[in-house]
Amino acid sequence: MEKVFSKSVTGIKNLSRENIDYILDLAAKLEPIINGESDAQPLKGKKLATFFYEPSTRTRMSFESAMIALGGGVISMSDAQRTSSVWKGETLKDTIKTIENYCDVIALRHFEAGAAEKADSYSGKSIINAGDGPNEHPTQTLLDLLTIKRRLGRLDNIHVVLCGDLKHTRSTNSITLALSKFKNVKLTMVRPQGFETSDWIKDILNKNNVEYAETEDLQAAINGEPDVLYMCRIQKERFDSEEDFNKIDGLYCLTRAMLEKVDKNIVILHHLPRVNELDESVDDYPGAAYFEQTYNGVLVRGALMTMLLNREHLV
Amino acid sequence: MEKVFSKSVTGIKNLSRENIDYILDLAAKLEPIINGESDAQPLKGKKLATFFYEPSTRTRMSFESAMIALGGGVISMSDAQRTSSVWKGETLKDTIKTIENYCDVIALRHFEAGAAEKADSYSGKSIINAGDGPNEHPTQTLLDLLTIKRRLGRLDNIHVVLCGDLKHTRSTNSITLALSKFKNVKLTMVRPQGFETSDWIKDILNKNNVEYAETEDLQAAINGEPDVLYMCRIQKERFDSEEDFNKIDGLYCLTRAMLEKVDKNIVILHHLPRVNELDESVDDYPGAAYFEQTYNGVLVRGALMTMLLNREHLV
Amino acid sequence: MEKVFSKSVTGIKNLSRENIDYILDLAAKLEPIINGESDAQPLKGKKLATFFYEPSTRTRMSFESAMIALGGGVISMSDAQRTSSVWKGETLKDTIKTIENYCDVIALRHFEAGAAEKADSYSGKSIINAGDGPNEHPTQTLLDLLTIKRRLGRLDNIHVVLCGDLKHTRSTNSITLALSKFKNVKLTMVRPQGFETSDWIKDILNKNNVEYAETEDLQAAINGEPDVLYMCRIQKERFDSEEDFNKIDGLYCLTRAMLEKVDKNIVILHHLPRVNELDESVDDYPGAAYFEQTYNGVLVRGALMTMLLNREHLV
Repeated sequence: MEKVFSKSVTGIKNLSRENIDYILDLAAKLEPIINGESDAQPLKGKKLATFFYEPSTRTRMSFESAMIALGGGVISMSDAQRTSSVWKGETLKDTIKTIENYCDVIALRHFEAGAAEKADSYSGKSIINAGDGPNEHPTQTLLDLLTIKRRLGRLDNIHVVLCGDLKHTRSTNSITLALSKFKNVKLTMVRPQGFETSDWIKDILNKNNVEYAETEDLQAAINGEPDVLYMCRIQKERFDSEEDFNKIDGLYCLTRAMLEKVDKNIVILHHLPRVNELDESVDDYPGAAYFEQTYNGVLVRGALMTMLLNREHLV
Repeated sequence: MEKVFSKSVTGIKNLSRENIDYILDLAAKLEPIINGESDAQPLKGKKLATFFYEPSTRTRMSFESAMIALGGGVISMSDAQRTSSVWKGETLKDTIKTIENYCDVIALRHFEAGAAEKADSYSGKSIINAGDGPNEHPTQTLLDLLTIKRRLGRLDNIHVVLCGDLKHTRSTNSITLALSKFKNVKLTMVRPQGFETSDWIKDILNKNNVEYAETEDLQAAINGEPDVLYMCRIQKERFDSEEDFNKIDGLYCLTRAMLEKVDKNIVILHHLPRVNELDESVDDYPGAAYFEQTYNGVLVRGALMTMLLNREHLV
Repeated sequence: MEKVFSKSVTGIKNLSRENIDYILDLAAKLEPIINGESDAQPLKGKKLATFFYEPSTRTRMSFESAMIALGGGVISMSDAQRTSSVWKGETLKDTIKTIENYCDVIALRHFEAGAAEKADSYSGKSIINAGDGPNEHPTQTLLDLLTIKRRLGRLDNIHVVLCGDLKHTRSTNSITLALSKFKNVKLTMVRPQGFETSDWIKDILNKNNVEYAETEDLQAAINGEPDVLYMCRIQKERFDSEEDFNKIDGLYCLTRAMLEKVDKNIVILHHLPRVNELDESVDDYPGAAYFEQTYNGVLVRGALMTMLLNREHLV
């Protein structure tokens, strides 16, 4: 296990398997503090700025919850594009060179791919990518991984099915990249034609000798008894045309009945919020782990901040 | 006096007189802490999420002020319906099952009657109803009661006039229910025809043998020398038609001159903000207690959180 | 040096030179605390309410950062006019008489000149003017002054050029008033005809025997080798007509080339965000100090709160 020594975490692609192990291990150590069973305050005196160009209540509140639980403070801009008329037209560079004077770490959500890396290059403070357009969402992936690890006890030797719009979903991009770093991972991608995983990601899978298959048939993928099934919301905001969106919207919907066709208890993940691709009948299925994901999100976000601010010794 | 032993406070209707006494007593004990005269931090390490589907600066800031003053932390969603595009369409159940992983107690404002009770059933964490549509607003009522108790020294043996739209106002619903739990309370309802207190509330009053009268004449009610006069804002957002709203808007306006017709110093309450039903000439009237109500609101909200999180021993 | 003994800071015009020296000196003393190099918490137990009728992420986050760094807590209303439907129509008086029950100090941003002074007259708590329409923005000026003092080592005996819309910009109003309190200050105002510094400010300059000149030529002003050059954004929201705005928009743009024409290292200030009046080529110029201004803003806002809440002895 090895700590990330750069000052920021802008993408899963910059993290080694050893880095990921380090972060997940630290997340587990933070659990008693975050749950209030310990009085430790490893981030006391530290300040987080959540700076979100697009609103994302879930991710923002998760970061803020972690920082408060670890003893730090929070300043928040939850919807920079809409509620800040004055800022319209200010460059990302100027914004970051201002915000960095108010905090120790910035959780940045932006609508453009690459924004977090740019922000890191402008700033003397740590940046954590809280989603940059269609590109990456590394904290989502880290919480996905922590959930799988806690459910299965391992991240090597697993078979994962990804289902939905694999072309536009940054969560599946990031987790695909992450899984390619582990041993003997097998992937099955379920998606309609035209919504395939991007070629640059497939290139990495090929380079890392990750076995993967593509299909349009969700039930067939379930019948293959995977360890994990990751359902994705079709994100309308990522589509250029209504027509493209309609091609895929409602095409896949996981139900309890579909899962009952095999004996295996499959770990069901979803990046939430769900719309119509994950039926409520699944909620009581023993493998359903999507609300656990939100719980684990606080732990991994806390771990990232603790690591980047070099406060592991206070945990 | 008896503590509320359920994990949430969703309505006045679930509180006994003994519960109310307990909460008001605890509120008074918190006063030196909230005013910064004591270093106690009974809610240290605890996190409040204010989750408001409708904006309500007053109620939200009051909850947050109490939590901070008692040593805890706050994460906030001030306008979930408008500023969170992603969340649109997410069920209350999914939202609550997510948010509960970020905090210890949720102050929930929702536009639908019954939302707080539903949220309580979904969540393992404490819910405090911060207003659920036209239904209940229990923290408002508790602060009303604390204000009356501090002004009159009692909650039994009082005559209270309620004036305004008694059909649509949750604040008057809740205080009517609350007062029905005390001894020898007399109510006078001042409202135009068509805006009467709902029958289900009158049924409770009858069952509890509460004496009440209805009138359209505010001056006559004042001339009856009540102990308390509660003026209500006509809340346009509760009306289905502009026509109905216009029937009552501006019909009642309390002035200093109206109060001067009797010798008695009547305690004047209002749930604020006021529009045109409470003239500024009343502000210097000795009985005017509506800004005290906002002060007392911090105390009762702090008391509810302290009670539900079982931290009374740290007060 | 002399502390401000009134309970609020509503404008530079109420501050003496001795007051300003006191605040800037206190700001410097707070620096190690704000940077996390000291565990002191001079504002522990204190609560700031940032109440902004207009959004201003920069000023709001700066106040909040200072309060958190000094050990206090924050409650926030970032866009009262737009996100608070209920509050529409509530008077400033009622709002302030409510908010004051939730906090110890209010940072108030309002669209009307004089709002902060009015708020101070309504409230028993401290008010800090965070900008009142076209009138004053004293915390901006204090951070401007701190930046000049840190760069030049003095506030007396300086030549300052102000450039832009000197008619509508509150930041230049406030700093002009402030500089008039120091010794041997020379001002050069660069602006097109029709956008002159207001007469009431010129009257004060004349009364205080401040030497000033007016010109339309920015390069000529630079060639005069001033100590400081303050560039202003043309603020569209302050104009009554598009036509007036177009007369001045884009008229002035400071570039590195313009500064290279003289040998002197001029301190470049800007109230940020910039639009088109300050070219990015200036960012590496040694005198460029506009991001330092945002850093210094946290210090002076922390100093004001510490002073008004009488916690200097804990610094």
